[in-house]
Amino acid sequence: MKILLVNPNTTGAMTDSLSAVARAHTQPGTEIVTVTAERGVPYIANRVEAQIAGAQVLELVAANRDGVDAVIIGAFGDPGLPAARELFDIPVIGMAEAAMLTACMLGDRFSIVTFSVALKRWYLDCVAMYRLDGRCAGVRVPGAGFQSIAAVQHELEDDLVELANDAVANDDADSVLLAGAPLAGLAFRVAGRIPVPAVDPIAAAVRQAETLVGLGASQTLTGRAHRPPAKPTVGLDPNLADMIEHRDRPVGAR
Amino acid sequence: MKILLVNPNTTGAMTDSLSAVARAHTQPGTEIVTVTAERGVPYIANRVEAQIAGAQVLELVAANRDGVDAVIIGAFGDPGLPAARELFDIPVIGMAEAAMLTACMLGDRFSIVTFSVALKRWYLDCVAMYRLDGRCAGVRVPGAGFQSIAAVQHELEDDLVELANDAVANDDADSVLLAGAPLAGLAFRVAGRIPVPAVDPIAAAVRQAETLVGLGASQTLTGRAHRPPAKPTVGLDPNLADMIEHRDRPVGAR
Amino acid sequence: MKILLVNPNTTGAMTDSLSAVARAHTQPGTEIVTVTAERGVPYIANRVEAQIAGAQVLELVAANRDGVDAVIIGAFGDPGLPAARELFDIPVIGMAEAAMLTACMLGDRFSIVTFSVALKRWYLDCVAMYRLDGRCAGVRVPGAGFQSIAAVQHELEDDLVELANDAVANDDADSVLLAGAPLAGLAFRVAGRIPVPAVDPIAAAVRQAETLVGLGASQTLTGRAHRPPAKPTVGLDPNLADMIEHRDRPVGAR
Amino acid sequence: MKILLVNPNTTGAMTDSLSAVARAHTQPGTEIVTVTAERGVPYIANRVEAQIAGAQVLELVAANRDGVDAVIIGAFGDPGLPAARELFDIPVIGMAEAAMLTACMLGDRFSIVTFSVALKRWYLDCVAMYRLDGRCAGVRVPGAGFQSIAAVQHELEDDLVELANDAVANDDADSVLLAGAPLAGLAFRVAGRIPVPAVDPIAAAVRQAETLVGLGASQTLTGRAHRPPAKPTVGLDPNLADMIEHRDRPVGAR
Amino acid sequence: MKILLVNPNTTGAMTDSLSAVARAHTQPGTEIVTVTAERGVPYIANRVEAQIAGAQVLELVAANRDGVDAVIIGAFGDPGLPAARELFDIPVIGMAEAAMLTACMLGDRFSIVTFSVALKRWYLDCVAMYRLDGRCAGVRVPGAGFQSIAAVQHELEDDLVELANDAVANDDADSVLLAGAPLAGLAFRVAGRIPVPAVDPIAAAVRQAETLVGLGASQTLTGRAHRPPAKPTVGLDPNLADMIEHRDRPVGAR
Amino acid sequence: MKILLVNPNTTGAMTDSLSAVARAHTQPGTEIVTVTAERGVPYIANRVEAQIAGAQVLELVAANRDGVDAVIIGAFGDPGLPAARELFDIPVIGMAEAAMLTACMLGDRFSIVTFSVALKRWYLDCVAMYRLDGRCAGVRVPGAGFQSIAAVQHELEDDLVELANDAVANDDADSVLLAGAPLAGLAFRVAGRIPVPAVDPIAAAVRQAETLVGLGASQTLTGRAHRPPAKPTVGLDPNLADMIEHRDRPVGAR
Repeated sequence: MKILLVNPNTTGAMTDSLSAVARAHTQPGTEIVTVTAERGVPYIANRVEAQIAGAQVLELVAANRDGVDAVIIGAFGDPGLPAARELFDIPVIGMAEAAMLTACMLGDRFSIVTFSVALKRWYLDCVAMYRLDGRCAGVRVPGAGFQSIAAVQHELEDDLVELANDAVANDDADSVLLAGAPLAGLAFRVAGRIPVPAVDPIAAAVRQAETLVGLGASQTLTGRAHRPPAKPTVGLDPNLADMIEHRDRPVGAR
Repeated sequence: MKILLVNPNTTGAMTDSLSAVARAHTQPGTEIVTVTAERGVPYIANRVEAQIAGAQVLELVAANRDGVDAVIIGAFGDPGLPAARELFDIPVIGMAEAAMLTACMLGDRFSIVTFSVALKRWYLDCVAMYRLDGRCAGVRVPGAGFQSIAAVQHELEDDLVELANDAVANDDADSVLLAGAPLAGLAFRVAGRIPVPAVDPIAAAVRQAETLVGLGASQTLTGRAHRPPAKPTVGLDPNLADMIEHRDRPVGAR
Repeated sequence: MKILLVNPNTTGAMTDSLSAVARAHTQPGTEIVTVTAERGVPYIANRVEAQIAGAQVLELVAANRDGVDAVIIGAFGDPGLPAARELFDIPVIGMAEAAMLTACMLGDRFSIVTFSVALKRWYLDCVAMYRLDGRCAGVRVPGAGFQSIAAVQHELEDDLVELANDAVANDDADSVLLAGAPLAGLAFRVAGRIPVPAVDPIAAAVRQAETLVGLGASQTLTGRAHRPPAKPTVGLDPNLADMIEHRDRPVGAR
Repeated sequence: MKILLVNPNTTGAMTDSLSAVARAHTQPGTEIVTVTAERGVPYIANRVEAQIAGAQVLELVAANRDGVDAVIIGAFGDPGLPAARELFDIPVIGMAEAAMLTACMLGDRFSIVTFSVALKRWYLDCVAMYRLDGRCAGVRVPGAGFQSIAAVQHELEDDLVELANDAVANDDADSVLLAGAPLAGLAFRVAGRIPVPAVDPIAAAVRQAETLVGLGASQTLTGRAHRPPAKPTVGLDPNLADMIEHRDRPVGAR
Repeated sequence: MKILLVNPNTTGAMTDSLSAVARAHTQPGTEIVTVTAERGVPYIANRVEAQIAGAQVLELVAANRDGVDAVIIGAFGDPGLPAARELFDIPVIGMAEAAMLTACMLGDRFSIVTFSVALKRWYLDCVAMYRLDGRCAGVRVPGAGFQSIAAVQHELEDDLVELANDAVANDDADSVLLAGAPLAGLAFRVAGRIPVPAVDPIAAAVRQAETLVGLGASQTLTGRAHRPPAKPTVGLDPNLADMIEHRDRPVGAR
Repeated sequence: MKILLVNPNTTGAMTDSLSAVARAHTQPGTEIVTVTAERGVPYIANRVEAQIAGAQVLELVAANRDGVDAVIIGAFGDPGLPAARELFDIPVIGMAEAAMLTACMLGDRFSIVTFSVALKRWYLDCVAMYRLDGRCAGVRVPGAGFQSIAAVQHELEDDLVELANDAVANDDADSVLLAGAPLAGLAFRVAGRIPVPAVDPIAAAVRQAETLVGLGASQTLTGRAHRPPAKPTVGLDPNLADMIEHRDRPVGAR
């Protein structure tokens, strides 16, 4: 199976680290292909950036969907997820949603630990959108800042581990999500220092994408009631316009 | 005061009818200026189109914000509202939110009556986002189709009035929102045929925009905690990029 | 348009300060007339007093409704609001409800700041009754007491401003309601010292009353399903009895 | 123990039938004393009447509280309950609340069956106020009208039994409340024709009053945090004024 | 009437203390018979033990149901309650549920005070199962440990009283449940030291059992829709198997 | 990896069909071992049977846990899941929970389609326990009965497909769970006749078990805060007693 990992952040190095963790957790036979946003911000952190990035996600999937069995949106916060799930006939997975739902099988409540207070409200938007408020033990963020988004998971490693332990001790968390694309892989590295399961969102997303494809969802989404009817467009990205206008031209043929 | 009415639909005639109703309900001294999306779809009706339109809204406000005291997003469903409210230091009003909150002062529960089943889920997204599920008596849509979006409020007038009466009789509705930009003004025309207040969303939005400005909100939003810090961008619309990058260049000076 | 401002507190000076703020925020052509409760307590602060005051509100509106387009109940906590809204065929606005709903357009969550812990539970009753628990960031009250209800907004001004800042910094509030009739006007005076919009409840109530009348609600409430049928009464205030018994005698003609 | 049954309706015959059922379900040693409202309406059925009746309840309890161990408010809908519970240092029981909580011990969900559609919204207010929405399977009312409030439980007996059976069959109800003071005693008479427990609200209220007194609540309510402090009053009923002003004069000594 | 008090804990002394408090609160004519689990743990404290104990409860009731009018499950946490209520045609009362619902008549919110942190999550499961989250002000537990489960209510008396006072002062509790079978009777002993009603769960359970029987529930549960149909069993306790297989052999006749 | 599939029903043929579907959906390297309850009922369908079966599940896992990486409880309804998750240091998966959470990634709301009305309330208990009420579009059951539990998925195939289509058309379902162990494999067989993804619960459970093990949960559950401390037991199954008493004897060594 082929999974398209869309990084809506413009940072190519982030795509590389996400795909490295993703590939380490695929089943035999799963191929991960990636695409990185060319427009936008280096790291999406709020509603403004998520609004813009969500539209980008639609364009990137539309342009790269050939032969793809499932899509992963490579930003915790899942920009564009509801829209992409509505537009495309294949499973679309968000790192945040996949991590949260996976965590629900590990106990009553999960805690989200991330690296910047700027992300908190956007992450809570996700929790609310998925109606998981009753399962979330809160979002914890370090007081300290950091120098480099590329190195943040190393710079703040001790702080993040301490926050995870605080969440278990004080927030009654049964699992911890180490959230945000820049933390990809951290959960595996620090698992031994946290007394409950630490969920890695990109690894969870890969597994859930494989699960949905394995259950046959890629063949059965075409009849859903909420599939948008064809509509004319003006000035949109051509591939995205093709999707919205229900044109059958193959991707890239324009 | 100057209110910017952004129509994220690409249909100019819709901007005209919205602004006509809006202008009929302003206080003395209020000026309505309008802008219409140049890219997108003629009429936004689902999550896909709202995702794209929401990003457009940010660009259109960024480009037209000079001297503006408040912004109205001219599509019931409020594409881009949370992002715009986060990005700009002036009040941003959505037709859906304004109509719903206004209706809350007219009784326990409001009903939403609109002209196409395609809109239902998107509208319910709004209700949930504003956490007004407990105040909404449902969304009712006609079985019949229509020929022209421009004339839909006339074509389906009798059906919509009947649905409004059904909502009062069977759904325990205390007020009715006649929802969707193409229905602008209909509430006033059919008020005598509905036994409870019929709320016109664009008129409600204008009044609420004036209210927020009148209460001084345009001067006091600059210090809010969730104002995004400056961030570099790549390839975005220049005016929007200015906003995100916190550049002080006046609008249109690029 | 004529708006009746009912002060269910027995303190005439409070009526004066409420109406002064109200009049400063009306549109041209709006007239504010006032009436003050002759029976009751100087300042309503709990459920007991609200139960009594709510019945008073019905009497006062019944006696003073001639030519009135909308009613404002001049006590944050809105005593008698659901009953008055059921009984009378014109819009009835509460200071608490109007302020909360207005605040909902300024961000995700509002905080209520008031001057005495005695008010807290009653105010939370309001939040729950309007099903706005998910939008309220809490109620904050000063530890310090005060000498005079008439001067409380000056005595405690610094404390209240500090509480408002605490609500923003610690409770994630996007706006602050300076709540309680004795605080009328304070929001405008201290706006510069609070980093988010401070909502003045009486000003919000006036604007919302004008909005409902402007949208035509005063003409369309007569057909609502929950209008009580006529019923005999014994020993009630004559004007209120007239309303309940559906007698057509003009107000004051008895 | 002495229980004061306050009938906030002005119909003395209703007091008689309520107290007859009440007395049939007391324990040895329990005395029921009654008082009937002299002002108000013959039968309370909506928010307007409940607002007025609730204030009456406070006066009636204040005037008749000597030697009383607990109070029952004799109207399903519980007018004045939160206020009375705040003001008096003895347990105050509502027929609606007592019946609903009792029913919660008989299965997941109770249904409310009553005799007029006019009551429905007021009863649902109660369900919401007690936060029991998740336990209520709905309110069912007959289509047929009735001639006499005194005889309604006989006139509509077959309809009410059928509604109760419908609630079990279609609404998944585990118990049924036969609600409204005019239905006092009906639950016992028709128990054999309903396949689940039929709860009689006045009988439930008596038992719950005895339970609270038996558990010692009458001695332990004096220290509660939300007991209102003394406050001056103007023009109120003298006994009620005594309570609010914290005067120690015995009841009736004025 | 005859009430069967089932102690699902294996500690006989606990049965004795529970039944002593129970008997002190019965009405004339009520007989309490007891049975103690022979298998299980001395004191049930979590989901594992509650799962096992719940199955035991079914066996113990099945074996001892002859002539019984109602059943009380003698463990706060109510192991097996929903299953027992489904299986048996007589009222089944849990100490936790009875105490919580009783407390709901004493004010807006109750607090649960117990003696060990191990119990907290299980107790909150109960609150959620009964959908009373909105009425619960929290669970408070002492920091200190204890020597003997038999003496814990004496050992920790001062700590528990202090926690109850904390709950009133800081959690806005209107009543306090002194929860856990080992605390039976404590509420009565310390009532004078807590400013709000302290509810004793076993006493509340006895009163509620009497109430349900008094209202006739023991005769009317046979027709309920969710009564399980007969089903074959293998290897189960013979009395329980009889119940599930709908065999009519009298209890103990095997 | 080794997954223990516990069938708490006593029907061996059901174990065979569950394990056949399970094995068809494992990754390379995953081994499924099974155990079937020797005591209980042929097919668990309600709270009574789930209470008993849940205790059985604990015994069966305790006796068969050697070398096991994760456990699947092979009954939709997940008897014993919270207890097993508390007791054992490895992931425990329920068919109902796994299917519901998987379905959450396929759209807003899932519908549950099953073969008997007897199951409905138990299944809704699950939905509520996982706090997924807002994601569930309801439970649909056929009116028709069936001859044989072993053949029910063939007997009722057309009815079940029609119910699934009804759920999509009328309940706004985005996916359908074909629920109940006797329906194992049906989702794959009828996928082409249902316009949205049909989720097979046992296949979903296998995939989710593999996911949790793959994310490392089997190594990180030992430190969780809610792990029960050692406690003495009387008369329990020896392997279960070993677990509860924290004895280190290997399984089966007694």
